Amino acid sequence: MEKKKPLILISNDDGVLAKGINELIRFLCPLGEIVVMAPDSARSGSGCALSVTQPVCYELISKKPGVTVYSCSGTPVECIKLACSAVLDREPDLVVGGINHGDNSGTNVHYSGTMGIVIEGCLKGIPSIGFSLCDHTPDAEFQPLEKYIRQITSVVLEYGLPIRTCLNVNFPCGEIKGVKVCEQAVGQWQKEWEPCPKKGISNHFWLTGEFINMEPDNEKSDNWALANGYAAITPTTVDLTDYSFIDILKERL
Amino acid sequence: MEKKKPLILISNDDGVLAKGINELIRFLCPLGEIVVMAPDSARSGSGCALSVTQPVCYELISKKPGVTVYSCSGTPVECIKLACSAVLDREPDLVVGGINHGDNSGTNVHYSGTMGIVIEGCLKGIPSIGFSLCDHTPDAEFQPLEKYIRQITSVVLEYGLPIRTCLNVNFPCGEIKGVKVCEQAVGQWQKEWEPCPKKGISNHFWLTGEFINMEPDNEKSDNWALANGYAAITPTTVDLTDYSFIDILKERL
Repeated sequence: MEKKKPLILISNDDGVLAKGINELIRFLCPLGEIVVMAPDSARSGSGCALSVTQPVCYELISKKPGVTVYSCSGTPVECIKLACSAVLDREPDLVVGGINHGDNSGTNVHYSGTMGIVIEGCLKGIPSIGFSLCDHTPDAEFQPLEKYIRQITSVVLEYGLPIRTCLNVNFPCGEIKGVKVCEQAVGQWQKEWEPCPKKGISNHFWLTGEFINMEPDNEKSDNWALANGYAAITPTTVDLTDYSFIDILKERL
Repeated sequence: MEKKKPLILISNDDGVLAKGINELIRFLCPLGEIVVMAPDSARSGSGCALSVTQPVCYELISKKPGVTVYSCSGTPVECIKLACSAVLDREPDLVVGGINHGDNSGTNVHYSGTMGIVIEGCLKGIPSIGFSLCDHTPDAEFQPLEKYIRQITSVVLEYGLPIRTCLNVNFPCGEIKGVKVCEQAVGQWQKEWEPCPKKGISNHFWLTGEFINMEPDNEKSDNWALANGYAAITPTTVDLTDYSFIDILKERL
């Protein structure tokens, strides 16, 4: 009996029509059977959010050999939950988020809908990867990423990943010098609000800001890799326990 | 000169009118000056989500000696960002989320708006604690938590927390036998969707499900503590790097 091709579940947070997810589908087609379940519109900054007060629905957008595309009214995390629990007839071999239009390195991992997808896949025990490009424009150039995305994905399909670990992969704009395996950069968002007065009322604001890398010389960080032209692969755990603090805390209580 | 009282910034994801946050204000009043910036309505399951497509606003709800309360149109994370960057005239000494109506132990930490608050405080370098009760009813009984919340908060005000570590504190319903410092339980949500047909269309679903603890006998886990009547304190890191996998991954690429 012929072995089934790997089933690759793809989603994003920029919506099913974004260029990034459609380029990702094209790049991953040779590696397996693709099912896409992606939000029907942009959901940037969704993190691991859930829709709690309204039902979630999905619909088939297109089906051709090797690629089936659904759109979904829910959050990126719900796209994965819905595909895995209510739509697919077998468990995916891989969950992939992206390609995000924008940087998800450093502490941005917490706000990222792309990484929400990847964390959800990982929580379900499925090897999961998020791909992001440091260019948030709708017509960003993804072609230089193809060979790297195909290589990283092939390695994960071959070896799997540790049970509670997923990958956060970010690409710099322009030429890519190579790949570095990194740590999450230590940094903070600052100047986060821009006043947006409404009819003379001064309490309205747009979220904005600039990310300050607190360790700009740390060559192990994902921010450093990106700033120096390398793709950054950050192994990311879904077990948030700080084991090193357990005994200290026990003594203080 | 008299030393200023600690400034305690409180938020939640059940909204500014919820019983849990108002009980928390009452419990923490003796420990410092309280400023509340909480969502104007329920935002359960917000995780670390951000409002990206609309501006965020806030308004003063009440001000009396020691307690100032604002409501905010944004997500729980934005409540903290807005308070710290646009409203408060000094940095909080402590950020506290809760008391959540519902369990945020185990992998729920990823979806929790309460823990979104706490992660945001921690990313800003402020000691941060989330309190949750395993009872999601609007009139849940919070009184048994008072002495524990006051003790844990006092310890954190006295000693601080490691720079990238916050606390996820969950309380069982009913009698509390004591406190255990725990690990995040390993588990998965299953049976996550309940069909919600709409006018004969079968593709609408409500998110639901049951949490399966994969290690029910692990006495170190927060789920075990709660199931056995103890309050569970899980030290939680905002650095998601899986350091143990970096060298292995380097070899595979």
